[in-house]
Amino acid sequence: MFQSAGIVARFDKKESLKLAKELVDHLYKKGVEVFVEETLPSELHKHAKAIPLNQMKTDFVITIGGDGTILRTCLALPKPEPPILAINMSVRGFLTEAEPKQALEAVEKCLQGKYIIEKCMKLSAATKETKFPDALNEVVTIAEEPTKLLYMRIMKDKEHIVNCQADGLMVSTQTGSTGYSLSAGGPVLDPQVNSFVLTPLCPLTPFHPIVFPAKTKLTIEIEKPKRILVIIDGHYRQLVSSEPLEITVTKSRNATSFIRMQENFYHRLRSRLLFKGNG
Amino acid sequence: MFQSAGIVARFDKKESLKLAKELVDHLYKKGVEVFVEETLPSELHKHAKAIPLNQMKTDFVITIGGDGTILRTCLALPKPEPPILAINMSVRGFLTEAEPKQALEAVEKCLQGKYIIEKCMKLSAATKETKFPDALNEVVTIAEEPTKLLYMRIMKDKEHIVNCQADGLMVSTQTGSTGYSLSAGGPVLDPQVNSFVLTPLCPLTPFHPIVFPAKTKLTIEIEKPKRILVIIDGHYRQLVSSEPLEITVTKSRNATSFIRMQENFYHRLRSRLLFKGNG
Amino acid sequence: MFQSAGIVARFDKKESLKLAKELVDHLYKKGVEVFVEETLPSELHKHAKAIPLNQMKTDFVITIGGDGTILRTCLALPKPEPPILAINMSVRGFLTEAEPKQALEAVEKCLQGKYIIEKCMKLSAATKETKFPDALNEVVTIAEEPTKLLYMRIMKDKEHIVNCQADGLMVSTQTGSTGYSLSAGGPVLDPQVNSFVLTPLCPLTPFHPIVFPAKTKLTIEIEKPKRILVIIDGHYRQLVSSEPLEITVTKSRNATSFIRMQENFYHRLRSRLLFKGNG
Amino acid sequence: MFQSAGIVARFDKKESLKLAKELVDHLYKKGVEVFVEETLPSELHKHAKAIPLNQMKTDFVITIGGDGTILRTCLALPKPEPPILAINMSVRGFLTEAEPKQALEAVEKCLQGKYIIEKCMKLSAATKETKFPDALNEVVTIAEEPTKLLYMRIMKDKEHIVNCQADGLMVSTQTGSTGYSLSAGGPVLDPQVNSFVLTPLCPLTPFHPIVFPAKTKLTIEIEKPKRILVIIDGHYRQLVSSEPLEITVTKSRNATSFIRMQENFYHRLRSRLLFKGNG
Repeated sequence: MFQSAGIVARFDKKESLKLAKELVDHLYKKGVEVFVEETLPSELHKHAKAIPLNQMKTDFVITIGGDGTILRTCLALPKPEPPILAINMSVRGFLTEAEPKQALEAVEKCLQGKYIIEKCMKLSAATKETKFPDALNEVVTIAEEPTKLLYMRIMKDKEHIVNCQADGLMVSTQTGSTGYSLSAGGPVLDPQVNSFVLTPLCPLTPFHPIVFPAKTKLTIEIEKPKRILVIIDGHYRQLVSSEPLEITVTKSRNATSFIRMQENFYHRLRSRLLFKGNG
Repeated sequence: MFQSAGIVARFDKKESLKLAKELVDHLYKKGVEVFVEETLPSELHKHAKAIPLNQMKTDFVITIGGDGTILRTCLALPKPEPPILAINMSVRGFLTEAEPKQALEAVEKCLQGKYIIEKCMKLSAATKETKFPDALNEVVTIAEEPTKLLYMRIMKDKEHIVNCQADGLMVSTQTGSTGYSLSAGGPVLDPQVNSFVLTPLCPLTPFHPIVFPAKTKLTIEIEKPKRILVIIDGHYRQLVSSEPLEITVTKSRNATSFIRMQENFYHRLRSRLLFKGNG
Repeated sequence: MFQSAGIVARFDKKESLKLAKELVDHLYKKGVEVFVEETLPSELHKHAKAIPLNQMKTDFVITIGGDGTILRTCLALPKPEPPILAINMSVRGFLTEAEPKQALEAVEKCLQGKYIIEKCMKLSAATKETKFPDALNEVVTIAEEPTKLLYMRIMKDKEHIVNCQADGLMVSTQTGSTGYSLSAGGPVLDPQVNSFVLTPLCPLTPFHPIVFPAKTKLTIEIEKPKRILVIIDGHYRQLVSSEPLEITVTKSRNATSFIRMQENFYHRLRSRLLFKGNG
Repeated sequence: MFQSAGIVARFDKKESLKLAKELVDHLYKKGVEVFVEETLPSELHKHAKAIPLNQMKTDFVITIGGDGTILRTCLALPKPEPPILAINMSVRGFLTEAEPKQALEAVEKCLQGKYIIEKCMKLSAATKETKFPDALNEVVTIAEEPTKLLYMRIMKDKEHIVNCQADGLMVSTQTGSTGYSLSAGGPVLDPQVNSFVLTPLCPLTPFHPIVFPAKTKLTIEIEKPKRILVIIDGHYRQLVSSEPLEITVTKSRNATSFIRMQENFYHRLRSRLLFKGNG
């Protein structure tokens, strides 16, 4: 039974803050201890404690926003991550579970235990010196200056498998396979496939996405340039210039758990494939 | 220890028949019982018995040809299939192990037990009434008349996952992922990924390759037209008009075993990616 | 001023025949001489003469159906082709101008001269011996047996430009560039681009769509197999086994003219890109 | 007759400087007035005047390097640009004419007038306030922070044609169509096609390359973010934050002229398609 809840919300949208307040009040009435991200405005603090995301060790977390809000929440939450109920308040909400008008009902179901958990693999990326935060969607290795070519050697465990000249390389989870990786020409990975996929960005040399078993230790050795950018889930960005310049990617021991009313990966995939944006 | 060998060879190439004869003689001298495919010319029958492919229950089988020769051999061999040592006598020999001049040495290593076995998953395709031969590379569902659109519904186990209008759909193994599926825009599957991939042929509606766990029972329901063609590994072709018109694809209990001197999937992949054909 | 009209309609749909009848009656009342395709049922013959498509030398032609109806009409109409007003009675009506409920209004505008003509380039394909009907969308060269590889040499005018191993090759007009060619990975050609595009079908060797100037004489020499299928606009299908086996494609002297209320190529493109089919 | 020559060379490669010196000496002996880029070392100044690239108004210019050297030379040369003889001293020399060992012979042919001129269209990009240098290959509009999504509206002349959400958009010439645009999934444009092509970078929404007539005024309106990066030919990079934020691209009045011994576009294309890099 959930006895504490964390609330994260976009603060650039009125409706988002309004819904956050409603949920705080509702949970408070139900006797649930509520925490809100400290950056949220003070009118939300009446029935909730304000804490930073990385201290939100609650029984579950509600995100109000789109995929961006979910991704930055996962990056920051303490490990193991509390499960996430994602309310959609965005144009791009492929990972979200419920629309705003269904929010109260979904929260109610959470409190009643009427839900399932979708556990999503994460990726762990590191250099010899630095470990990056785990990725729910993807790890991108790219030049600091957009469109500059990277010269790379790719190793699977200890085996050199292929070289690649491209704008960048992306390693994507099953969850991420319907996101940026799809835009770059990668395949969809069914959530039950125990794999991740390596997708190139604008390869100069013929190169195709490669699907690896999740147990693989993938190493990307960058021969040129001397400094590159690692981007995790589109939010965490880190310049890297270690020597030798190489990034390893493995399956993380951590996972992200989504609260779902039912399995709906393919429902979400269909909406992604037919996504019109504001077009 | 290999005490019997089967030999399959392209019979449209002199060099192929010459090499077949050399290998028959060599194996015979070594005391190995040799069988040759009955369609091979009679000068090969001196030290070998001629039998049809589907009775070749030998300790191992040597194919002399290219990928086409391997695929038709796998389709016909009795199950469980004897392991295959594939000698390349073709422009397209991505699956082969040794070049003709290395053939004797490779056979010698086989007899000495100095080899490893690469076990390759196969796919089992069927209608309600008919089971097709297992596929080493891929199962293609396509219109009988080239370029006619198929209207399809795709089911994962019992779940309807997506509809698709396309020239056809291909389900490909890891082995097949570097073959026809790659030409159609599919990803490469590492041999250790326990998966298969669904790749569309010229989809009218936005559709991306999807990678499924090997345990999936994939069902392709064809709404239109009333009759379609199922093609296994490019060689076995069967018109299907059952009602309802649906094809199921699952992982087969059978596998194909290749005799390799060392693991070389990525070596073969690189030669595929840079393949120039006769261009 | 339009004094005669031809009517072509899908005869597998009641609504289509009903609308055809309405239009016949309307045009008859307005004093326009009406002709209907002879395959249409006799209740349409009261105020109209039944003639075969290839004799329909009327001032304009109304098609009631989808892209398929338009394509088969263009293939058969006498040259130079009368302009076409295309009413959409199909799921796929990317080339059509008006929805059924707008049909009477559109016809009225035609009679009042309130329209523009969109002139669409056609392609002329031929072997040394045979000239095929002109293509509004595309000329496809493909194996008779689906998925069999073609070995081809491509010549631009007299210059050998590149070899290609693929399931087939398509040469597509600007109009066709949003159709089958798009499904095969080809680019969109703006209607004002004086060009056509060569798009491969599942190329084994690395090969990209190539855009040629409209004045190009493109020759596809097929080295293997000995017999291939030429498909024009998805409707006309002809087996070819001339020796040498080669297909030339040039811009045709004929064109297809569509009656439009306004320029709307990009409107139609957007609906094509976001097309959901029955998915 | 060429009476003056400019020489541009990679200065990070000994062979390049050695060849530059040989050519200076050779041209000097032949009575040709020689100019070298001022950044080249002083041992080259004995028989040549050192001047900046943007003052190199010579009868022709010799570049010693790869495509990068050519592109930065074209960006800087005074207009109209002197014709370029490009000697390859790089892994990527798709645009070059001669290998180092053919350099003297090629220069000799230039002096004898035994050559043809390949005239290549350039693109002119601008905001309301700023005109960028002309592009020989492509104009890229992209976010300053790699992988950040751009929200764009695309106008053809005055007509809104389509919206696009992508990492970026590229407008490429025929020359550029075999370069970065190809890596991003664009088609090849024959040099005689009077067109340019719009190719998206990792589009989130379904979007295909579009080929426009060269006379088009293409406008890219960026709705988000407020500041973007314009990159010309991979070398010129300019942050733009005008309001409204829009980039127009048209055919330039300037062109780049290459000195060729014969027409060889498709020869160069084949080497591009089969390019192995250092893989």
